[in-house]
Amino acid sequence: MVPKGEESNRSEMERPGACAEPPLSRASAGRLSLYLRCLESLQTEGDQKVSSGQLGEALGVSDAQVRKDLACLGNLGQPGIGYHARDLIAAIRKALGINRKWNTVLVGVGNLARALLKYSGFQQQGFHILALCDNDPAKVGLRIENLPVYSLEKIADRIRSGEIELGILTVPAEAAQAVADQLVAAGIRGILNFAPIVLKLPPPVSLVTVDLAIQLEQLAFLVQWSAHDRLPITR
Amino acid sequence: MVPKGEESNRSEMERPGACAEPPLSRASAGRLSLYLRCLESLQTEGDQKVSSGQLGEALGVSDAQVRKDLACLGNLGQPGIGYHARDLIAAIRKALGINRKWNTVLVGVGNLARALLKYSGFQQQGFHILALCDNDPAKVGLRIENLPVYSLEKIADRIRSGEIELGILTVPAEAAQAVADQLVAAGIRGILNFAPIVLKLPPPVSLVTVDLAIQLEQLAFLVQWSAHDRLPITR
Repeated sequence: MVPKGEESNRSEMERPGACAEPPLSRASAGRLSLYLRCLESLQTEGDQKVSSGQLGEALGVSDAQVRKDLACLGNLGQPGIGYHARDLIAAIRKALGINRKWNTVLVGVGNLARALLKYSGFQQQGFHILALCDNDPAKVGLRIENLPVYSLEKIADRIRSGEIELGILTVPAEAAQAVADQLVAAGIRGILNFAPIVLKLPPPVSLVTVDLAIQLEQLAFLVQWSAHDRLPITR
Repeated sequence: MVPKGEESNRSEMERPGACAEPPLSRASAGRLSLYLRCLESLQTEGDQKVSSGQLGEALGVSDAQVRKDLACLGNLGQPGIGYHARDLIAAIRKALGINRKWNTVLVGVGNLARALLKYSGFQQQGFHILALCDNDPAKVGLRIENLPVYSLEKIADRIRSGEIELGILTVPAEAAQAVADQLVAAGIRGILNFAPIVLKLPPPVSLVTVDLAIQLEQLAFLVQWSAHDRLPITR
């Protein structure tokens, strides 16, 4: 599962015996994103050291879980002292693969796409939306939030050239699989899917689906059981 | 953690010894939502029986995991035959708390709110958005997608009366905590938060945060490790 080019990367991240392959479970990776948010807000506030207890308390997980998750990043913590926030941020960004820029296309220009374009979080974490794409000829050629709208054929060329690696899909459910197939045929490496269907993508194309109704269902579940949960669901 | 009124509900759902309290982990609840999507599409296609293997294959989890998750719903499956899709759908909807209607307010009327209003999935799963809310006096009084926009004060009254139980927050990050505090003070039971901050809500108010940058980070993680995952990340 590990791409050849990443192998040297991996051995740096591993502590012998600490983490099986892959170095992080999906659940740990989800928590790393949350630790990162925490650490970034601490740094903004000028703090330099952080303990597993602080991170755990902020996210509602145990100290032990935090230490276990962070052990996968290497020997970063010092007992009784904690972690240097800056080092930890760099290690997490590397483990998540966001210590680099990811050129991204947003496919399907509707209200959701417009909302995402205004969302500064993507850019801050290295996701650079460099083009929009729509199959409506009336939209192709427009500029929205200063980005050009291209046809799927034009975008496929830019994926083929390696310029664009990730796609965000905000097309209607009925169009999503066909559009995804075209992105995959062009060589897209990963898709963030907002359409409410289960896409079928061949390996090694990665897929994360944001099903907004599922998020609300999970809220109903928590409300029904009066539970309070800030942790990601992953497997 | 279980509300008094729900106790009889719970005992029906439990099989002695099969599931600890609460009857479902957060991760299982997440998978139940995905099984439900699958089952609903099977029913549309006229299928009546479904096996753990079929559900597992559709979602990329093991048969054993499917059986374990579904065992928490009661004795629904028959060895060698599988599950009746209709019974399973009803049991999952009950466990998730979506066998009823949830009156919901959408707070913060921007592009994301407009996108969510057009998203039919909420309504289909029993989430009835019955009002919009914004603190911009220019928006109060408008009708958007045939729903009225109210001030936060007016909405607080409707939460206080018990008419509205859930809130979807699509306000800017800097406003989110203050708005959430007002909803909580009025008695909201749960919040689905799209603002990219970690909200602090007192128990028993439930919270699910959809951090869109985290979803993209998880995609980068999967792409970096060439992994394939179809399950949603939520927190």
